[in-house]
Amino acid sequence: MQVQTKKIVNDGNRTVDEMLEGILAAHPRHLKSAEGSPRSIIARDGPRQGKVGLVIGGGSGHEPTFLGFVGKGLADAAAIGNVFASPPPDPILECAKAASGGAGVLFMYGNYAGDVMNFDMAAEMAAMDDIEVRTVLTTDDVASAPRDQRQKRRGVAGNFFIFKAAGAACDRMLSFDECQRIARKANDHTFTMGVALSPCSLPQTRRPNFEIGPDEMEIGMGIHGEPGIARGKLKTADEITDEMLDKILDEMAPARSDKVAVLVNSLGSTPLMELYIMNRRAKQRLDDIGVSVHATWVGNYCTSLEMAGASVTLMHVDGELQTMLDHPCDCAMFRAG
Amino acid sequence: MQVQTKKIVNDGNRTVDEMLEGILAAHPRHLKSAEGSPRSIIARDGPRQGKVGLVIGGGSGHEPTFLGFVGKGLADAAAIGNVFASPPPDPILECAKAASGGAGVLFMYGNYAGDVMNFDMAAEMAAMDDIEVRTVLTTDDVASAPRDQRQKRRGVAGNFFIFKAAGAACDRMLSFDECQRIARKANDHTFTMGVALSPCSLPQTRRPNFEIGPDEMEIGMGIHGEPGIARGKLKTADEITDEMLDKILDEMAPARSDKVAVLVNSLGSTPLMELYIMNRRAKQRLDDIGVSVHATWVGNYCTSLEMAGASVTLMHVDGELQTMLDHPCDCAMFRAG
Repeated sequence: MQVQTKKIVNDGNRTVDEMLEGILAAHPRHLKSAEGSPRSIIARDGPRQGKVGLVIGGGSGHEPTFLGFVGKGLADAAAIGNVFASPPPDPILECAKAASGGAGVLFMYGNYAGDVMNFDMAAEMAAMDDIEVRTVLTTDDVASAPRDQRQKRRGVAGNFFIFKAAGAACDRMLSFDECQRIARKANDHTFTMGVALSPCSLPQTRRPNFEIGPDEMEIGMGIHGEPGIARGKLKTADEITDEMLDKILDEMAPARSDKVAVLVNSLGSTPLMELYIMNRRAKQRLDDIGVSVHATWVGNYCTSLEMAGASVTLMHVDGELQTMLDHPCDCAMFRAG
Repeated sequence: MQVQTKKIVNDGNRTVDEMLEGILAAHPRHLKSAEGSPRSIIARDGPRQGKVGLVIGGGSGHEPTFLGFVGKGLADAAAIGNVFASPPPDPILECAKAASGGAGVLFMYGNYAGDVMNFDMAAEMAAMDDIEVRTVLTTDDVASAPRDQRQKRRGVAGNFFIFKAAGAACDRMLSFDECQRIARKANDHTFTMGVALSPCSLPQTRRPNFEIGPDEMEIGMGIHGEPGIARGKLKTADEITDEMLDKILDEMAPARSDKVAVLVNSLGSTPLMELYIMNRRAKQRLDDIGVSVHATWVGNYCTSLEMAGASVTLMHVDGELQTMLDHPCDCAMFRAG
């Protein structure tokens, strides 16, 4: 019989609400919940008149995604779902209202069926309140569909770059059209590959969300345990990183002297030591093909509770995207730049 | 037979060096290694003439401790040991040289026998180079010795607060005496308790560093698996947090309307969700006794590779310590404030 995963929780059905209480207690300068809607987390210093609003959101369990990206210069609000489950339309609508400055509201979130359904419904409800909503889905997970079906891909750790670029465009008071264009461009330029080593378990069940052998890894597995593209024996850090970068670089096809931004992300329990060893290899590979690194982030950005594994994201940056990534932002849970 | 822990590494004996390569590749704006001494990591923007230098360091495997705390406004340099092992005197000496601005150098590190021996030796070597070194050990781990033997206690996650306060004093160009006084005061005002749920394994051996039952936890366990003060059945988040805070508050004895800074830290694989649930309880407890929270940090600050568990640190802050914690700093791996 499978042993239950140990967790520091109280009631397994109350984890998200208790987490949100703890987050608001920790970060009162950055975050608040919308009046009467505790699952709508708003940037204290974000929304303002004339600015395009940016609303993000999705299931919990990926912290600091999405909450950690709420702040001045990034997202104005995040709608919070249960663990690995989309938020319903109501908290999304309340986010739209809080984020609206009369210039339109962008909805951005990972491309998952439940999220699409609920965010679309919230967009219709917002329209009835005279808030125009446009949606840009994130689809950076290279492993989740072939390249000619990019619109079917899921959104994963690349969210961070894509939200960051879009949030900067909004904070710079660009027009709705421009913010939407930059958001789409950011998504089109962002590519992620993940590898999973061991599962996580939901607080309600405490059972592993997938099975994997004691010496196996799975390349391309999604952040909710969606099947990847290759399962095999655990390889070395360099081999794993190479396998991911081969896929990404093949599709991105950067020219010599092009620039990328790099994110090496832990899925939860893989420590910084291993992430930096992967980053070392990524840098070697990029050096080898004459591609330079504009900026690098390494750490827990898009997790799956305590899953072991990592992802590598490259954003193929031109001058405009570099400006957006460099734009200052002030979020509670991470540093930028 | 115990299954080997899966890790994303290459050669288990090269993990620290490869990690450092990856760190320097990721953070060239913040960090460099000392000329000819790759285990001496220096803040690009830290050391300067007339400023007291701050050198920290210790074993690897606790990232972002110590590397992540190197930067302007915090530590000037960190000496990096092997996993869970003290750095030898030479890289510590090179850190002292790099950090020296002619006003003296503070050595600050957790109170472990190997570190004390090697840092003391480096201090003697520095004296021969006319660099005056003074040492302030961190001893925040409440569980590691009785309160009347504070000098025997180990240094753990509270390092972050203690280094931050001392680094601010140095950055504000205070005198050597003042920097040393504030460093000591910061340590005397900082109290940490940890809980471990599952072990980590060293990259060389990949064997768990301690045994613990599938439904057990151990309160007070150290960050290298040093025995704690109570092993028992895994309790709820509120019960665990209460048990830790009871010990800390009993010793700290804050008066109503006193202030504390709070750090809820993951030992590695315990995710943000659980940490914030603990923070929720900590805030409730502090509210109950009329103690207010000056600032809160939640995340991976002092880890033990992929160990599961967490620690709670309170720093009992007066106006001076608040000023030091609020002092801006610019480090690669975390945000402050």
